Amino acid sequence: MSVARIAVVAGDGIGTEVTAQARKVIDAVLPGVEYNEYDLGARLYHRTGEVLPQAVQDELAGHDAILLGAIGDPSVPPGVLERGLLLKLRFEFDQYVNLRPSKLWPGTTSPLAGVKPGEIDMVVVREGTEGLYVGAGGVLHKGTPAEIATEESLNTRYGVERVVRDAFDRAQRRDRRHLTLVHKTNVLTHAGNLWSRTFAAVAAEFPDVTTEYQHIDAASMFMVSNPQRFDVVVTDNLFGDILTDIAAAVTGGIGMAASGSVNPERTYPSTFEPVHGSAPDIAGQGIADPAAAILSAALLLEHLGKHDEAARVTEAVAAEVASRTPGAPLRTAEVGDRVAAAV
Amino acid sequence: MSVARIAVVAGDGIGTEVTAQARKVIDAVLPGVEYNEYDLGARLYHRTGEVLPQAVQDELAGHDAILLGAIGDPSVPPGVLERGLLLKLRFEFDQYVNLRPSKLWPGTTSPLAGVKPGEIDMVVVREGTEGLYVGAGGVLHKGTPAEIATEESLNTRYGVERVVRDAFDRAQRRDRRHLTLVHKTNVLTHAGNLWSRTFAAVAAEFPDVTTEYQHIDAASMFMVSNPQRFDVVVTDNLFGDILTDIAAAVTGGIGMAASGSVNPERTYPSTFEPVHGSAPDIAGQGIADPAAAILSAALLLEHLGKHDEAARVTEAVAAEVASRTPGAPLRTAEVGDRVAAAV
Ligand SMILES: CC(C)[C@H](C(=O)O)[C@@H](O)C(=O)O
Ligand SMILES: CC(C)[C@H](C(=O)O)[C@@H](O)C(=O)O
Repeated sequence: MSVARIAVVAGDGIGTEVTAQARKVIDAVLPGVEYNEYDLGARLYHRTGEVLPQAVQDELAGHDAILLGAIGDPSVPPGVLERGLLLKLRFEFDQYVNLRPSKLWPGTTSPLAGVKPGEIDMVVVREGTEGLYVGAGGVLHKGTPAEIATEESLNTRYGVERVVRDAFDRAQRRDRRHLTLVHKTNVLTHAGNLWSRTFAAVAAEFPDVTTEYQHIDAASMFMVSNPQRFDVVVTDNLFGDILTDIAAAVTGGIGMAASGSVNPERTYPSTFEPVHGSAPDIAGQGIADPAAAILSAALLLEHLGKHDEAARVTEAVAAEVASRTPGAPLRTAEVGDRVAAAV
Repeated sequence: MSVARIAVVAGDGIGTEVTAQARKVIDAVLPGVEYNEYDLGARLYHRTGEVLPQAVQDELAGHDAILLGAIGDPSVPPGVLERGLLLKLRFEFDQYVNLRPSKLWPGTTSPLAGVKPGEIDMVVVREGTEGLYVGAGGVLHKGTPAEIATEESLNTRYGVERVVRDAFDRAQRRDRRHLTLVHKTNVLTHAGNLWSRTFAAVAAEFPDVTTEYQHIDAASMFMVSNPQRFDVVVTDNLFGDILTDIAAAVTGGIGMAASGSVNPERTYPSTFEPVHGSAPDIAGQGIADPAAAILSAALLLEHLGKHDEAARVTEAVAAEVASRTPGAPLRTAEVGDRVAAAV
């Protein structure tokens, strides 16, 4: 029997290259994993017109986790692969905790003057199954001067409460025990009020976690002017999308940005993937940085309860990145080899 | 007869102090303006429960422009003054061009390492009358586990086209003639598609303007990693709210961030206000920086067709800021005096 069954969706562009390194590292730290590869993304779409065949979805459901590389290609119309695959997995597999740690690692440089490695260390817990991402909306009188287009943000007490509780729980297990709620309560008064009330109610269960509220515009500004102030952040789907990219930017770009779309109950598999895209411009050259993919594998191991293994992978990536010679060309496979050797 | 009729809504906190300086500077550069003061904001709300009485709104409508200080106080529930006054003015007075220039001025310091004054110089044209700001939404089963809350983004071809055309027009009158559309077409496919198609159609009228599209998450990242790349940006109401605060942050904070909520046809008065808030913590001490308020007055003059006067005010503020001794305490009135003397 295998120690875990992982579905691999390497995807497009550099997805294949970085995923291979993540597997290499998982194998080094946790021998005996069973992998099943699924060829999804732009290639499948162009070949068959399909994005996520039902049979594949059913098979994916039987895995402990999904290791995803990158999905997307300029040849596919916007939304097709995103809605049809990435978001579909998040919704079908109830991955309501979209987990995005951001850390300024030794050896990496923040674009912010005077901010030193170690000073930024936060986790954004982004809601993954509600809000503006639900796909509720439409268009009327398309192509005429009378055209209107709508997008609806749907938020439930059920959905907000579970992700807020998850965030409190994570905050409680960290040193600083601080949780920031980010929303736009002064404009989105209905959803904002639901988020605020739910946040306050759950806060009562976690008296040792200090809390704070920020509007999304203010939080975006603080991400730049004072990212050190954040510990754990909980926010809705769209705000989380934006905020985590700013967090990635201030910690030196998406090179180290890992993510997990997590179903905490493990009723369904969770997906782990680097935040970066398929980068078609550098694909196939063996020069993509696999650090974010390998860090995503560490999140995967953590989710499977392999805490020690996860910590070793994270530390090995951190050490590898810190040991890089600035300006020296990077080889995808060598990074994977070095991290695999170190775990 | 006065050269212009300006309604002054100084508002809360430091609003009064900074608005006084903006008036001082307007008077110095354009004598003969008629001002009418309206006491709106937290004080009126607490005294009468009213935010924008209909009679006041009717009077405001008779002015050439509104000079606004800052609205908001922690004692008022979120949304009351924002929806009832700031957004109400934008919607009632059809202020569909929400104009937000961001420039790294000499004498100011970007938090971004190595970015020098003059390198960042952009204008975000934020749509002001549609999107998620329309207030369409509601709540069901409030306070129960079955609660749901919705927010709806409404977008019309009419509304998108006019703001996109305004942005192209502004881009065409600048040196770089570059316009970036920011949206989230891969997730908000309905509204995104309307924005993209409209943008492409209007672009055909401006063959000398180069264009680019970015998702809001990528644009937020670029605001940090490479803000120099932006010239004019056009985006929807909520994305514009977030993006302009990041732009303010990378240009040294909201100290210099001016804004105009503009009705280009001048059918209704436009509102000009600093992006910063009422800052109750430093109110009444005479230490608030009025630069953003004075720069907002320059936008007001520009809007009234006083191009030369607007340019002189902007230059005088830039010179005053560049002449400041780092670390020296700032006196609100002195800044106003120096700028007024210089114009
Ligand atoms: C590709 C896109 C659908 C996705 C999102 O918006 O969630 C991406 O930006 C992300 O952050 O995972
Ligand atoms: C106060 C608030 C309603 C407003 C907005 O969201 O537009 C403010 O943040 C702004 O940017 O002018």
